[in-house]
Amino acid sequence: MPRNAFYAQSGGVTAVINASACGVIEEARKHKKHIGRIYAGRDGIIGALTEDLIDTGAESAAAIAGLRHTPGGAFGSCRYKLKSFEQSEAQYRRLIDVFRAHDIGYFFYNGGNDSMDTANKVSEVSRALGYPVACIGVPKTVDNDLAETDNCPGFGSVAKYVAVSMREAGMDVASMARTSTKIFVLEVMGRHAGWITAACGLAAEEAGQAPHILLMPEVRFDEARFLARVDATVKKWGYCTIAVSEGLQNAEGKFLSETGLKDAFGHAQLGGVAPLIAQLVKDKLGYKYHWAVADYLQRAARHLASKTDVLQAYAVGREAVRYAVAGKTAVMAAIKRTSNKPYRWKIEPVALSKVANHEKMMPKKFITGDGFHITQACRDYLLPLIAGVDVPPYRNGLPAYPRLKLKPVPKKLAESFIIP
Amino acid sequence: MPRNAFYAQSGGVTAVINASACGVIEEARKHKKHIGRIYAGRDGIIGALTEDLIDTGAESAAAIAGLRHTPGGAFGSCRYKLKSFEQSEAQYRRLIDVFRAHDIGYFFYNGGNDSMDTANKVSEVSRALGYPVACIGVPKTVDNDLAETDNCPGFGSVAKYVAVSMREAGMDVASMARTSTKIFVLEVMGRHAGWITAACGLAAEEAGQAPHILLMPEVRFDEARFLARVDATVKKWGYCTIAVSEGLQNAEGKFLSETGLKDAFGHAQLGGVAPLIAQLVKDKLGYKYHWAVADYLQRAARHLASKTDVLQAYAVGREAVRYAVAGKTAVMAAIKRTSNKPYRWKIEPVALSKVANHEKMMPKKFITGDGFHITQACRDYLLPLIAGVDVPPYRNGLPAYPRLKLKPVPKKLAESFIIP
Repeated sequence: MPRNAFYAQSGGVTAVINASACGVIEEARKHKKHIGRIYAGRDGIIGALTEDLIDTGAESAAAIAGLRHTPGGAFGSCRYKLKSFEQSEAQYRRLIDVFRAHDIGYFFYNGGNDSMDTANKVSEVSRALGYPVACIGVPKTVDNDLAETDNCPGFGSVAKYVAVSMREAGMDVASMARTSTKIFVLEVMGRHAGWITAACGLAAEEAGQAPHILLMPEVRFDEARFLARVDATVKKWGYCTIAVSEGLQNAEGKFLSETGLKDAFGHAQLGGVAPLIAQLVKDKLGYKYHWAVADYLQRAARHLASKTDVLQAYAVGREAVRYAVAGKTAVMAAIKRTSNKPYRWKIEPVALSKVANHEKMMPKKFITGDGFHITQACRDYLLPLIAGVDVPPYRNGLPAYPRLKLKPVPKKLAESFIIP
Repeated sequence: MPRNAFYAQSGGVTAVINASACGVIEEARKHKKHIGRIYAGRDGIIGALTEDLIDTGAESAAAIAGLRHTPGGAFGSCRYKLKSFEQSEAQYRRLIDVFRAHDIGYFFYNGGNDSMDTANKVSEVSRALGYPVACIGVPKTVDNDLAETDNCPGFGSVAKYVAVSMREAGMDVASMARTSTKIFVLEVMGRHAGWITAACGLAAEEAGQAPHILLMPEVRFDEARFLARVDATVKKWGYCTIAVSEGLQNAEGKFLSETGLKDAFGHAQLGGVAPLIAQLVKDKLGYKYHWAVADYLQRAARHLASKTDVLQAYAVGREAVRYAVAGKTAVMAAIKRTSNKPYRWKIEPVALSKVANHEKMMPKKFITGDGFHITQACRDYLLPLIAGVDVPPYRNGLPAYPRLKLKPVPKKLAESFIIP
């Protein structure tokens, strides 16, 4: 007796989260004995809470296939964390009510740490409330910090983007450095973990190539050592390029981006970390600088997605459905690296309890002794993740990113739900 | 009797200036009856002044061909403006001394407005000093503001980059907007002209698509009207994406980026225009924002170069050599659009005197009446310039950008020259 499925995107979106959606929906459409309708939550799990469901069955096969090359979150996303059953009882009960009303027996939650925790809790709670739902986690995060999976879908494409950007900008600065700009700073995402900053390091394949310095959150910012390295680099190579994480911290553990600089009206510092670092170099060493803040550009850049990332994002979606159909629950479709040269990987289920609320930090052995770059071990880990290209179709010079119909499912419940 | 050639890159480099270098050198190598050695200036024209010449003959055909897909300036560049003969007499005399010592009869200067002026002056001065040199301008600028040419090499690729980036980031924000970020601001280059900001507008192919608002330098910033438009956009579409030029000016004609905000130590505002605009929206309307500053990323992004731009950058280099060999001087290889649908173009010589020190601003008819977007006429102009892709070769997941040997030419002059 087929039951319906519910899929939701959660947290910050990536260049490939829709590839996971594609994997889920295309695979689910193949298991008609087990899965009936495939619903998605409008703007994520709050769509389930407010009973704003989307019927993906209204989308053509071509439209669903097009998700593979479309960035952003096709169904919308939200950051909405459900706490323990005791603390969020109303939400859990409402979720089960909605699931029950729409005969939903499968829940695919596509997100990061918090989402894996939610999927785990919903699995337990649904059983406790007498309406068991198969809950499967589909991993996603540019921060690459989910436990139990070798890497996270979304990260490989950001890594490719920032490494390419660093290389290209570095070549620009190198051209100008003799009489003009000598310093370039690129700010990338990563509040707690320096994975993305580390990926910038891939661009430095030979001595002297950009980036020369990486400022990762794992290494407390030491102004004197940093400036000495910048000066030595300019004297040796003529210029210095720096990749900095938005989460860089000072010696006291405070984010540099929140160090209390204020404008004339008392407003807190507007800028990111890059302008701060650049101005510091100018003030202390006198070098002319440029800086860039990649922000959403780095995680939305489907035009430059890593083929490996796209394949893996699709695969975790596909396998999640297979796990559910096989009767599993409370597992995440995790990526396991089976060999490095050549790079091989497979997807396997891991218990959500092992993933939920754990954060995978960068191993110390991935950072050089001086704290300013990545080791060969890190390169060996990162390189396969950025391999290959998967180019979207273009039209009129721009990537053609189709939009879905997003057909709403008629509500069945009388009560509405206000999101607390 | 063949004479030697001198090629120099000037000003800010682009994703395709090396394609022009490729056009110059490959074509010059075909005219052995007229052109002997092909020298390049190390770091541009200052390389000529200090007699730091590079012998491009030491580079293989494959290495020169590789310039076509390599960003940055392969020979280095500088911003060095020669004034009138009276004001810069020492530099002009030195230049001619170096040209004479190395039997240079052809000067190819690859740059923007100032460079076209310099090439024009050197043509006159070389004749006045009894050592006539054929001086040909090869156009280049991301600002698209050279007169007498339909568009400028370097611009089409930046246009493609910012439009793609705007589209992708816009889709990201649209996914998050219901419960999270509603405002996204992308800062792009363009101190005086809004061509690059206008190009962002290409991404908005349908109503409601990013970008919703363009803030171009041609339109004085009106805070009240801007905020009203932002608010209306969020209320209608759920989010608002804004492209802003670094050269945005306030009602008094002052650059917003220099409006005197200071930090706690009295340092001038570190950030660019994007954080200013974003914070303004937050302060007045309360919406959560993200912002990005593309900086060098937009002009170095060879991975996303426009095929049209690459072809044109190569063509102007090639034609410049043909003009020189045909006996011309004081002309620039200009792009002429001969039809729009289909888009056709050709290269023709225009007098440098018509180009030098003129600046081509955006026509009023390219900006909508409300000042916040581009018209259909603008789209018709811009669209062909971003058409097509020209993908560099990749290795290990990153574009493989070869470097040249840059073999120095032995000096012949006894005197050195200190750059004033």
